[in-house]
Order: sequence, then structure tokens, then C-alpha cells
Amino acid sequence: MRKTTKAVKGAGGRMAQAEKPTPPYNLAPAATLSRIESLADTILHEVGVAIEHHPPSLEALRNLGATIKGARVHISGARIREFIRDKIPQTFTWHGRTPDTHLNVGINAPPVFAPVYGPPKVKRLNGEIIERATIAEYEEFIRLSDAAPALGTTGFLTCFVHEIPEPVRHIKMAEAHLNLSDKPFMGTVFSPTATHEVIDLLGRPPPHPATCNLLHLINSTPPLRYKQNPLECLHAAASRGEGCIITSYMMMGATSPLSIMETLAQGYAEILIGLALTQSFGAGSPAVFGLYAMPFSMQYMVPIFGNPLANQVQMIGMQLARRLNVPARGDGGVTSAKTDDAQAGYEGGHATLSAVMGGADIVMHSAGWLESGRCADMQKFTRESAFLENITLI
Amino acid sequence: MRKTTKAVKGAGGRMAQAEKPTPPYNLAPAATLSRIESLADTILHEVGVAIEHHPPSLEALRNLGATIKGARVHISGARIREFIRDKIPQTFTWHGRTPDTHLNVGINAPPVFAPVYGPPKVKRLNGEIIERATIAEYEEFIRLSDAAPALGTTGFLTCFVHEIPEPVRHIKMAEAHLNLSDKPFMGTVFSPTATHEVIDLLGRPPPHPATCNLLHLINSTPPLRYKQNPLECLHAAASRGEGCIITSYMMMGATSPLSIMETLAQGYAEILIGLALTQSFGAGSPAVFGLYAMPFSMQYMVPIFGNPLANQVQMIGMQLARRLNVPARGDGGVTSAKTDDAQAGYEGGHATLSAVMGGADIVMHSAGWLESGRCADMQKFTRESAFLENITLI
Repeated sequence: MRKTTKAVKGAGGRMAQAEKPTPPYNLAPAATLSRIESLADTILHEVGVAIEHHPPSLEALRNLGATIKGARVHISGARIREFIRDKIPQTFTWHGRTPDTHLNVGINAPPVFAPVYGPPKVKRLNGEIIERATIAEYEEFIRLSDAAPALGTTGFLTCFVHEIPEPVRHIKMAEAHLNLSDKPFMGTVFSPTATHEVIDLLGRPPPHPATCNLLHLINSTPPLRYKQNPLECLHAAASRGEGCIITSYMMMGATSPLSIMETLAQGYAEILIGLALTQSFGAGSPAVFGLYAMPFSMQYMVPIFGNPLANQVQMIGMQLARRLNVPARGDGGVTSAKTDDAQAGYEGGHATLSAVMGGADIVMHSAGWLESGRCADMQKFTRESAFLENITLI
Repeated sequence: MRKTTKAVKGAGGRMAQAEKPTPPYNLAPAATLSRIESLADTILHEVGVAIEHHPPSLEALRNLGATIKGARVHISGARIREFIRDKIPQTFTWHGRTPDTHLNVGINAPPVFAPVYGPPKVKRLNGEIIERATIAEYEEFIRLSDAAPALGTTGFLTCFVHEIPEPVRHIKMAEAHLNLSDKPFMGTVFSPTATHEVIDLLGRPPPHPATCNLLHLINSTPPLRYKQNPLECLHAAASRGEGCIITSYMMMGATSPLSIMETLAQGYAEILIGLALTQSFGAGSPAVFGLYAMPFSMQYMVPIFGNPLANQVQMIGMQLARRLNVPARGDGGVTSAKTDDAQAGYEGGHATLSAVMGGADIVMHSAGWLESGRCADMQKFTRESAFLENITLI
């Protein structure tokens, strides 16, 4: 039985943001971090990063001293670090609809927990599988996120919305966030037009710099590539002072080298480019550093979510972010389990604990992720969001 | 269908001991640790610790300057620290039957993983529950521990053995360890006679100091009490150069204060007494520091295993151990889940990860613990022992 969700705004479960663990867990020694940065600088200088079909990005990077060869940008990593230093806010305020829902995100704030992002299908509380999720499930996830005290945000795209046609889909989704919760939510990157339209929907931007209404998930396309759509969405968001989470999401052995250190170097190089663009298009606009990778199975041709190597990568990634004084994204709850079983429990639990102990400023996918990200599970969502109320106790 | 286990020694799964995470996670700042030590010193001085019916322990503590009032011992914590410093080995060798099964345990060695200890009942791989476990299940656990590359030891008392009469039970159990595996195993604390008899069974002691054949689980009885039997077993083990894990296992709100800091202070005070006794009876004998506590539910009158507060306690406990230069015990795999489900996955997984990241030198209960320790689950055992092969990757 599918129930229709009534569009009535909930009470909004809220808890005081807890403190970060002190100190964050520094897995890699400083010499290793320097080596990764140096490797990344070599990659940026010698191999370059492809920037596809976006002249404003090429122009911005040329202004930072880049050499453009075809679509590949060769640039000095040191120059980017110098450029972004003191521009990207260490801590920023992510505005909800009411002052008590505003979130501080960054080095001087507790971790913010966000729900799962991206699955096409949904598993409802009664176990029913909705293969092609609709706005009804989407609204249910907004209600669940709104009610969960540990979740600071209702996220975005907690599941895909299949039945609403593309030109208005993002508007209907954003309206659902606005109608059902006062908590801050994320922007859309379906297209630059969509990005602008959702920013327009929110009305007046919050005071610039170091505040935003929306955080946009901008991903590179590893190895060493940015495609046109994310670049245009990055441009749309940052030029209007809105926030971007710049993420390199790599599959070790497929879209990055097999080994952790070289993967970290590639990801760091990609993220530096994205961070530079946010500050070129909107100096002082919020930006978050997100470096994540998981092993890729050569046998089954799939990424292995929940593997402990991914936690090692994200923890060292957060150390690299701290050396830039840029807020860091972590990834919690990820697992390749197909139901919410013991595997889901320990894989997702370890990811979340690694993110928190590693010092993540915002933790994506921290509730509801199932089946390598193909399913948003409401049962796992409620279990995890309850559990997150205690996570910062370890 | 119950199968009979044949007493044929297995091949003995072994992996190279992995490295410890570097550095261990220091949850509490140094000032907090000093405060806990100072609180403990006040407890030892003003309240004292009860030593029940064991004149040799009273005598040993009197030699360290203690004042005895009835059965309560009032003593200087600083004096105990001075006494044990440089006596307790930072790292010791726990002997198996063959040189390649020897384990290094301590500050300069990787963590050693031990199976669950203590449950009366067993859940077999086919799901069958054996309410009163027998030597058949016990032998099966020895085989499983022997075959698991990540487990360095076959432990002891992985389940209770009900049908063998008390006078020979420990002998039959120890013989099973010797017959089925070359890996080191733990001593018994059923009675001091039993402790001696199992030590005798192993024949010649390994070279003293900093080596042992057997590690004995010696628990205080919180709050602030040592009962006669553990004291006599401690005396039996340490006087013959064998090892002791001195543990305070507290229920916050029942056998210790509700709050973490005061619980840590009480546990630290109790453990200092036990450590002092090991070195009084056998200077240089291996000793391990074990501080664990979980919240006690006033509503249900049971300890809440798997609660994140317990992980906070054990991580700070390990920091206190490091300040003494004494090897630290951690507790992995503990959960109050009644089957090996998502709760068992994340609670047990968090406990194990906290133990490893906290820098545990030996992790008790790291495979098979179920149902608040009342059940040894073979399925969870195999899942966890496989998982432990990667745990030190985070």
C-alpha cells in the first residue's frame, strides 16, 4: 500500500550541533601529505586536467597562469593554493528558512549530517521496493530528514523523481523541500538553468561572503577531467555566491590508480582545479573539499562500496583539506550490502565513524544509503539517523 | 544435526601481524588524563579498595606503603606508578606451541585479536541454539579460531562447557586447545588450583621476564573491590611468571558513577591495585591494562552493550594505559543485538574500530560475541574474523 504524503510542514527535529572529536584522527604523517601534494603538483603541471566545453573556466584558469593545450589545462598547484588561501571561508553559514535551522559548516563547527544522495529506487518502511521512485517517496524522505534531530539538512535528490518531466522536476523537488521543512537543503546540478532557477526560487541571497542558501554537489569526472555540465553548474552557483562541494569520486583501478597514495594525488589535483574555479567565479563563496575513492573490482566490474580502503582514503583526504584550511566532506553510511543487514551495519557504521573521527565538516550519505547507492532505504535511514544522535560520542 | 568434532590439529590460519594505526587516536587531552589520574589518587587515598580474604595481597600492598583499615586498602597512586614503572614489560611475547605462532603483545606490536570469552550458550552456523554449550561446541570454536588468519589466539572459555564436571573441566578445555591448535591460548581463572594445573599442563615456563604461555583474565569487582578468587588466581599466575589482563568492567550507574570521567577514575584506581599485585608477586611478569564500562539501563536493569559511550571509555582508558607504558586491552565486537543483524554490525563494528584506532594491544571479544555476551555465535564469529583481516586498514 502506497500512502500519499500530505504537504504539511513538519515540526522539524533539531538537536544542538555536537562538538567535533578533538583532535581529528590524523592517519597520515605530515611527510606523506607533502608527498601527495607534490605528486599532485607534478600531475597538474605535466599531465594537466581536461576542461570540456567551458570557456569561462579556461579563461579563469588562464588568469591563474595556466597553459592551455587543446582542452587540457596545465597549471601550478602552488599558485592555486596561494590563490584560494584566505578566500574560501574556513567556516560558513548554510541558511535554512528560519534562524534556528541555520547550520555552521566548517573547521570551527561540528559535523553536519546529510541524507543519501542519488539513488533511482526506494525501499519503503514496509519493505516494498519502488523501482522508479516518485515525488511521493521524495517527499517522504524530506519529512524523515526534517524529523530527524541529527540531520541538519534535508539534502537533495535523496531519491530520483521519475514521473515529473525534466523541465520542472528540480522546481517541484525544491518546492517540496521548502513546503515540508525549514532546514537548509542542497542545490541542483541537473543543468545550469536548473541551478539558476532553484537559486531564484529561494529569493534574496544570504549576505556574502561565508554564507549560502544552497550547497551544490560538483563532481569532477576522473581521471583528470571536468565535464561541461558540472562546470556550468559550478559557474552558476559560485557566481551568485552559493556554495559548492567539489568532489573527486574515484574508483581505484578504473578511474584512478590502484594504489591509495596515487589516487589521493589525482583526487587532490582535480579538487584544486574546482576550488580555484569557485573562487574565480565568486571570491569568498563557500566551497568544500571532497575526496573519496573505493576499490574497483576487476572481477565483477563494479566499485566495492564499504571497503575499508575507502575510509583510509577519506581520512587522508580530510587531512589534505585541513592543510588548505578548507571545509572537508566525508562519506558516511556507504555499503554494498543489498539489505540492511550486519554487512550494512558495519560497513556503513565504519564509513560514518571514519568520517566523523577523520574530522569531516559535512557528511554526505549519512542515512539511507543501500545497495552501492542504487537504493534509498527508509528503514536504514531511520536506523542511521537515530544512531547519528550519538555518533559524535564515538 | 550436531556434528562431532574430531580432535585433529588444524593447519592454523595465520597472517602477518599488521601494523597499528599511527598515531593512536587520542580522544582526551592530556589535562583530562591528569585530572582522571588525580581523581583516582584521591579515591585510592581516601576511599580505598577492598581486598577480600587474601593476606598475600594485603601484605604486598602494605609493603608499598598502604594503610589497611579492615579489608580496605588505602594507598598512594603515585607510589604504585613508581613501583610498576619499568617492571611491567611494554611489549611481551605470548608463546604458542611453535615459534611461528608466538605473538608480540604491547606498545611496540600490532594488535592481537582474541575471540569472545564467557557465553553460556552457542548459536551454530546452521542457526541451531545450544542453550547449555558442551565440549563439542567448545572444540568447534577452537578450530574456527585456529583457522582464522586474523585471530592470533584461540582464547579461552569461548563458550562454557557444561557437561564436564568442575574438577577436570579446565584440564579438558586446555587439552582441547593443545590438541586442536598451535596458537597461544589463555589461562583459566576458575580457581587458583585450576590456574596452577593449566600452567603445569604447559610444562616449562617460557624465559622470564617479558614472555608468557598464558594470559589470565583477572577482573576487579567494581566498585573498588577485589574478591578472593581473582586475587588467588592473579597470585598463582604472576608468581609463576605468567601474564594477567587486569580489567575493571564497570556498569555506569550501577557499579560505577553515571559519568564517564568519574567512571574512568574509579576503573583506573582499581586497575592500579591489580597491576601492583602482578609485579609484587612476579616482577617483570606480563600485565595488561583493561578499562571498560557501559551504561546501565535503570529501566531494564541490564548493561547496554554496544552503546557508543563504552567506546569513549575504552579509548580514554587506552590513553591512561599508554601513560603508564603498560599494554592496553580493548573490547571489540560487543553488542546487545539478539541476532547478527544491522545493529550487531554497527555496534560490534564500532567497538572493534574504536579498540583498534584507540591503540589496543589486545582486543578481547573481537569475534563471536552476541546478545550482550550471553551467546557465542559461530556465524558472527566467521563474519567478524574474516572482517578483521582488513580492520587495521580502518
